[in-house]
Amino acid sequence: MKVTVSRKAHFNAAHRLYRKDWTDEKNDAVFGKCNNPNFHGHNYELIASVTDDIDKETGYVIDIKELKDIIKEEIEDAFDHKNLNLEVEEFKDLNPTAENIVVVIYDKIKKRLKSTNQLEVTLYETPRNFVTYSGQ
Amino acid sequence: MKVTVSRKAHFNAAHRLYRKDWTDEKNDAVFGKCNNPNFHGHNYELIASVTDDIDKETGYVIDIKELKDIIKEEIEDAFDHKNLNLEVEEFKDLNPTAENIVVVIYDKIKKRLKSTNQLEVTLYETPRNFVTYSGQ
Amino acid sequence: MKVTVSRKAHFNAAHRLYRKDWTDEKNDAVFGKCNNPNFHGHNYELIASVTDDIDKETGYVIDIKELKDIIKEEIEDAFDHKNLNLEVEEFKDLNPTAENIVVVIYDKIKKRLKSTNQLEVTLYETPRNFVTYSGQ
Amino acid sequence: MKVTVSRKAHFNAAHRLYRKDWTDEKNDAVFGKCNNPNFHGHNYELIASVTDDIDKETGYVIDIKELKDIIKEEIEDAFDHKNLNLEVEEFKDLNPTAENIVVVIYDKIKKRLKSTNQLEVTLYETPRNFVTYSGQ
Amino acid sequence: MKVTVSRKAHFNAAHRLYRKDWTDEKNDAVFGKCNNPNFHGHNYELIASVTDDIDKETGYVIDIKELKDIIKEEIEDAFDHKNLNLEVEEFKDLNPTAENIVVVIYDKIKKRLKSTNQLEVTLYETPRNFVTYSGQ
Amino acid sequence: MKVTVSRKAHFNAAHRLYRKDWTDEKNDAVFGKCNNPNFHGHNYELIASVTDDIDKETGYVIDIKELKDIIKEEIEDAFDHKNLNLEVEEFKDLNPTAENIVVVIYDKIKKRLKSTNQLEVTLYETPRNFVTYSGQ
Repeated sequence: MKVTVSRKAHFNAAHRLYRKDWTDEKNDAVFGKCNNPNFHGHNYELIASVTDDIDKETGYVIDIKELKDIIKEEIEDAFDHKNLNLEVEEFKDLNPTAENIVVVIYDKIKKRLKSTNQLEVTLYETPRNFVTYSGQ
Repeated sequence: MKVTVSRKAHFNAAHRLYRKDWTDEKNDAVFGKCNNPNFHGHNYELIASVTDDIDKETGYVIDIKELKDIIKEEIEDAFDHKNLNLEVEEFKDLNPTAENIVVVIYDKIKKRLKSTNQLEVTLYETPRNFVTYSGQ
Repeated sequence: MKVTVSRKAHFNAAHRLYRKDWTDEKNDAVFGKCNNPNFHGHNYELIASVTDDIDKETGYVIDIKELKDIIKEEIEDAFDHKNLNLEVEEFKDLNPTAENIVVVIYDKIKKRLKSTNQLEVTLYETPRNFVTYSGQ
Repeated sequence: MKVTVSRKAHFNAAHRLYRKDWTDEKNDAVFGKCNNPNFHGHNYELIASVTDDIDKETGYVIDIKELKDIIKEEIEDAFDHKNLNLEVEEFKDLNPTAENIVVVIYDKIKKRLKSTNQLEVTLYETPRNFVTYSGQ
Repeated sequence: MKVTVSRKAHFNAAHRLYRKDWTDEKNDAVFGKCNNPNFHGHNYELIASVTDDIDKETGYVIDIKELKDIIKEEIEDAFDHKNLNLEVEEFKDLNPTAENIVVVIYDKIKKRLKSTNQLEVTLYETPRNFVTYSGQ
Repeated sequence: MKVTVSRKAHFNAAHRLYRKDWTDEKNDAVFGKCNNPNFHGHNYELIASVTDDIDKETGYVIDIKELKDIIKEEIEDAFDHKNLNLEVEEFKDLNPTAENIVVVIYDKIKKRLKSTNQLEVTLYETPRNFVTYSGQ
């Protein structure tokens, strides 16, 4: 029996949407006010969902405390109260759109899970805007 | 990499569940208090979710501002503060159940998207009742 | 020790903002799209808050089941799935703005409570617009 | 056209995670503070989602009032204000983890639905921890 | 300038409403299913609100990290995953109604604050039922 | 009859807690990770609540559209997608703690209201941390 176990977490961070290899005009045209050179920020809400068989011994798919700890170590400790463009290695040369952030988060959590665990990550940039990635 | 980008919106409207070609007795039996001839109403909450590859140039699946504008033009401008039965063309001969409304919304948004964009729409009629349609 | 006990409830209804004694032009100028003659509607969320001393015997300020029943009888049964303008006595000659509705709700609940119970009512017309009245 | 209709409900209950056939030490090691022998408890929030074709006559996938009644009879009446370990038959010999509870809920609701209705159940144990099962 | 700083927290616990000095019949009559002798439980959500002048040096009323730590030490560590009736000293002879719990929480947090800090505590027993106490 | 009308809005912004006239060590000691020199950010949620008599003519305390427009002009246009420290005049020499931001917001909205309107502003920095100011 495949069950999905989900855990919510959050972090807040500053970012700016732009590409170093584009002109200011092109960055402004494509990214608008999200390209403010002084940065803006969000409270990102994150849902990590792990799908696998229920372990008959424990009745768990994954110990949610373990999932909580993985999210803390991989995401909260790395991203919380940070400037994504300036301080997070993965975005040195990658534009921190919600889409790119959710893929980075997926990769960081996925490598910590058992190989049979399927993962889906949802990331709320604001209460009205969110993205989802499941490795496909 | 397929990522899903979601945008929440809302509108409020009056409606009544009934079929013109049924007797009052049958409408009452099937639709109960939702068949109040003087109408009742809801704050509809809407989530439109677009799935496609991330554009490598922009880091976007779809510019969420574009998705927001499509929802505004196709749904909010057409449905907000309206009586769905009397004032919205699509429900002249279609009973405005949540199921039928979500299909109408799907069709109106889908025709504005690129052909590769997959769409799913979720519509909350109340905080406890909601419906989802993805064109299948 | 004065403690406040609050209970949430909800109802959905159709309404229209207008005054019979005004011209159509004046109603449109003041109430805009809320003056749609075919009505529109909302999911109203309601919070009734009762403040009084804790009863030393029971540990209750008011049995919340009793408060729930009062809200059901006075408000939900009277307003849910109704057209406020056409079907609710109190709004026959009173414009059903959120402000006027919250005062009507306050009066209906207050008369069912013990005289020492202070009451405050908050009414959400939408998740972003709400009103509060405490009888002052 | 396949549409999914979802209904939210909730119940509160006490539970304890442990296995009778394990030592206290093993139960503590695996389940930590969730193995408090005096029990702890949750407000469980439940979403039951039914997918099927829209009935052309009624515009319904399923009458949501019927779905609400099934949830009330099968889940709320059986689980609300109960001790899951001591008072709910299904958990006499089954550890009431969120994963095991969601499967039990799925089975109880599924047997009340038409055979063509696909069901998915999501169960929130806390606002940050939730599980989903769709019979696969 | 008086500003109020609020912090949300939560804990889950089992409890039972009853009085040792009442007969079973009286406990049942007054507390109904909340008097289940096997206990039931809740996810309690807590808001602690501290009002005082803004400190001109720091721009803080109270360092919210300090308020978060006080709530953790006084409330979460003492109540989370506990049986309130059996394991929490304050309820050994006090019926753990929401009203009584909120007063106990108020007293435990208040004694940790500076004397000029005014405190208000709101406690959600369920998303629809909550109580508030401010020491009056 | 005094009724309170509330409107929710939101903006996102980057900020950093620090005082120019303090050493780095003192800023770090007092503001911790909130003193990241590269900034971090939040989705700020705002509730502006106006209390006054109901206008007998219109049934309004204040036209909520007018309140919405004031919030947009004074707060959203000035703060949204901005770096509060670098780009918002009021915080050039004022540490943008939540407490100081809510006072600034109060002052900007208050001066646009009628003198009889009482105002209270609540500002959520995160879903768990918020502040309230009513001019006292």
